[in-house]
Amino acid sequence: MSEIAKYIEHTLLTPYATEKDISRLCDEAVQHKFVAVCVPPYWVSYAAKRLASAPQIEVCTTIGFPLGFNAPGIKALEAKAAVEQGATEIDMVINLCALKEGNLEAVSSEIKEVLSAASGRIVKVIIETGHLTKEEIVLASKLVLSSGAHFVKTCTGYTPVGATVENIRLIRETVGDQLRIKASSKIRDYQTAAALVKAGADRLGVVQSLKILQEEQAYLTRQ
Amino acid sequence: MSEIAKYIEHTLLTPYATEKDISRLCDEAVQHKFVAVCVPPYWVSYAAKRLASAPQIEVCTTIGFPLGFNAPGIKALEAKAAVEQGATEIDMVINLCALKEGNLEAVSSEIKEVLSAASGRIVKVIIETGHLTKEEIVLASKLVLSSGAHFVKTCTGYTPVGATVENIRLIRETVGDQLRIKASSKIRDYQTAAALVKAGADRLGVVQSLKILQEEQAYLTRQ
Repeated sequence: MSEIAKYIEHTLLTPYATEKDISRLCDEAVQHKFVAVCVPPYWVSYAAKRLASAPQIEVCTTIGFPLGFNAPGIKALEAKAAVEQGATEIDMVINLCALKEGNLEAVSSEIKEVLSAASGRIVKVIIETGHLTKEEIVLASKLVLSSGAHFVKTCTGYTPVGATVENIRLIRETVGDQLRIKASSKIRDYQTAAALVKAGADRLGVVQSLKILQEEQAYLTRQ
Repeated sequence: MSEIAKYIEHTLLTPYATEKDISRLCDEAVQHKFVAVCVPPYWVSYAAKRLASAPQIEVCTTIGFPLGFNAPGIKALEAKAAVEQGATEIDMVINLCALKEGNLEAVSSEIKEVLSAASGRIVKVIIETGHLTKEEIVLASKLVLSSGAHFVKTCTGYTPVGATVENIRLIRETVGDQLRIKASSKIRDYQTAAALVKAGADRLGVVQSLKILQEEQAYLTRQ
């Protein structure tokens, strides 16, 4: 039995993913009891249908991804469409332009709009740690908390640095147990995955999920 | 006098661009007579106001950028918002999932929806050559042509390969003089810029525009 599978959102966000790719992703999620699949908005409807008989598996998608600099109002429209098509979890990218500008009101109200459009579904806010200083990671985490979202998520995968134990600890110290944390980007081996969970991550966004399960089995066998 | 400036869309699409960055970009476009600025959707309204006294400079922005895998209908909503906020040109990313799937009708109808939402503004379609075979570049270019858009654009900048002379020639052979071509991504020196124009590019998406102008002046001085 895997301990790590229940943390893993089995993820495929390549811009040229096909139906066959998404179908395989969903089947693997069922087989290995991952907590969610994370798919492009274009494939939400298909993934939701494919997973209709496995309602315990969340259908997660991305909004304003990966740059987060959409026009005001767009992310809420994307979230609404995603929910209508069957998404149960929404990973939105924070507006880094507004954050860097110090326009915290714009950042916060966008998160609240997405929460409202998501009609009670889980909303995770990607703060994109790779573009932030430590102080900005704290600031952004507090903003996510005060805006009422459910998770802070670390990264999109479009910066050179992925999730780190140090950043998960920093976010956990900042938000206490009031928010959940999704570690994401460049989680490519079991050791990294386990360390991120130990540091406080509640979810892991992972592409190489099967490799990590194999490594976990090898690790558990050695114990 | 620069020959190359009239081809250049002076571009800043970093996810954490500030008002100061966009302000500088606009002022440089005026000073050096670039054909356009290309800015994040979030900054269109500001750029349009900043360039109100320089209506010869186009305000270009990106839609479905850079992954193109949005839910159906979203890119048209983004285009509508961009136009309302003052964009005069729209660079949309093609749906590569649908293209790779062979669902050409979905690709084409999305382009037509964006054209309709853009209400007569210029629409460029980014086919993302870095993810396509030669055959797919030809196919995508023909789709852009038959859908009624104004430009084929090569790349988002989010693949390892940028605009190449070979691809510009291939697109030009495919679309003849019925479509314009915007070469984009990794155009970092005058020699590359000039070669792309010679191969058939009508526009160049460039970040390091001032460097290219300097190199052009050095080149012209040597002649």
